[in-house]
Amino acid sequence: MESVFTNYIKENIDFVHKELTRFLNSLPIPQNLKKSMLYSVEAGGKRLRPILLLASYEAFKKEDEKRTKIISSMAALEMIHTYSLIHDDLPAMDDDDLRRGKPTNHKVFDEATAILAGDALLTYSFEIIAKDSLLTDAEKVRIIQMLSSASGPKGMVGGQILDMEAEKRTVSLEEMENIHDLKTGELLKFAVGAGAFLGNATEEQIKELKNFAYYLGLIFQVQDDILDIIGDENKIGKATGSDELNEKSTYPKLLGLEGATKKKDDYVQKAKLSLLKVGIEDSPLSALTDYFSVRDY
Amino acid sequence: MESVFTNYIKENIDFVHKELTRFLNSLPIPQNLKKSMLYSVEAGGKRLRPILLLASYEAFKKEDEKRTKIISSMAALEMIHTYSLIHDDLPAMDDDDLRRGKPTNHKVFDEATAILAGDALLTYSFEIIAKDSLLTDAEKVRIIQMLSSASGPKGMVGGQILDMEAEKRTVSLEEMENIHDLKTGELLKFAVGAGAFLGNATEEQIKELKNFAYYLGLIFQVQDDILDIIGDENKIGKATGSDELNEKSTYPKLLGLEGATKKKDDYVQKAKLSLLKVGIEDSPLSALTDYFSVRDY
Repeated sequence: MESVFTNYIKENIDFVHKELTRFLNSLPIPQNLKKSMLYSVEAGGKRLRPILLLASYEAFKKEDEKRTKIISSMAALEMIHTYSLIHDDLPAMDDDDLRRGKPTNHKVFDEATAILAGDALLTYSFEIIAKDSLLTDAEKVRIIQMLSSASGPKGMVGGQILDMEAEKRTVSLEEMENIHDLKTGELLKFAVGAGAFLGNATEEQIKELKNFAYYLGLIFQVQDDILDIIGDENKIGKATGSDELNEKSTYPKLLGLEGATKKKDDYVQKAKLSLLKVGIEDSPLSALTDYFSVRDY
Repeated sequence: MESVFTNYIKENIDFVHKELTRFLNSLPIPQNLKKSMLYSVEAGGKRLRPILLLASYEAFKKEDEKRTKIISSMAALEMIHTYSLIHDDLPAMDDDDLRRGKPTNHKVFDEATAILAGDALLTYSFEIIAKDSLLTDAEKVRIIQMLSSASGPKGMVGGQILDMEAEKRTVSLEEMENIHDLKTGELLKFAVGAGAFLGNATEEQIKELKNFAYYLGLIFQVQDDILDIIGDENKIGKATGSDELNEKSTYPKLLGLEGATKKKDDYVQKAKLSLLKVGIEDSPLSALTDYFSVRDY
């Protein structure tokens, strides 16, 4: 599936990948730890989160401002996303052998190394922001506030716990939305918020963009649930039907396939309304919203 | 065993404990996650690291400066130490059922919750510094730089990896010192360095104190190794003789019990020389050095 945002990804994915691995390659650390960190970071997919941060930054920045300013935030965000996948895949958690068609970190290395590689990526993400010479102290502090809050117990980690607790029982739509908001949405809010902040958006715009990112996360999730039923396994890179097998609460389970699609369209409208309110309805963020909604992998 | 520093600990341990749990109790997060985080934080022992930070701060600060300024750094440090213990105890790592005489986190909760509680403590530690209204942005950035560097892949996590790799083979004294320096020493360097920095020590003093903390860490480790042979199980709260059982490289194994004790005395001299150079040879840090050297639990 080609779209405006697919092109945007294509144009920027190498840039993100290069900067990300540069941070890791420069680290003077034990070989095996570096290999393990790099393995999962290099196995990264479409780099949606950092590219979302980039798109948000470009929607606000002045023409002559360079993207070098957001590199550390993009890298930190992708490192935190990667650490969460490594820990998620562990036998004690989802016990996954494959991730994007490749063996998971603890299968290639061992569980102890995978746990520590995750810990290292999480910790290092704060270091690269704190040591970015292109940011002012005020900018570093704000970015670290946003990132720690989004990824910690009030954010992503809290969502993981709620998600575990919700397994194998039927939850309400409201509860499910809350779980997705924390588990997936918070990092998307960081991506959009940090990009806007570094692009000098107003505080009011940053606040409204939280609504945008909230719906964006839910759109992503509905489509994930739908693809688990009607998606093409070869394209997605993992087996479909796992949600039903695991008795997971999903949008199609709660609302039916048609109801889930309707809900998704509703979220798309709300997300675009937020962009309109902020005054960036023609930015790549709008194309991204469509992309999240119709992606087939 | 009573000493000047034992009294210093007694005087301050309640203060540290109270502030630490206050940070956690105020968190609006899933009940089970909070319980798991609090369980390990409350099971804390002598709070050596934050009290070391306090002692370093008090060696430099002006008389009218309050200790409220270092509370977030003390709490963050103890949270990171606690997260490292939770992950260390996991079945994939040291597989310990007991910690300080109590069941380990994953035994009381489950492995998944223990992994996430560790992740949450690590992430939250950066948040509480970034959001401390008593620190300037410059101070926050410096503290976060020091803490992330000390606890990440170049520091504590790197040390854990090296320690795992060194298991069941004999390592040289130099290699062993490097492992201890990273695994234990780096957080002690942060404690001393952050306390001195917030107390307005000069950059030169902060640099020299790294040497002090380096030796302090090694003193702690030699004594740990010695106690594993001649210590009183009831006082230590865990079984002795585990190092020999695990074929671990220790000071007594490499140098003999007498050689290890001599080495420790050598480290104590070097640590005190550093304090003399910095001009704080009469501070509680000197008593602490003795305490680390002769502690019997």
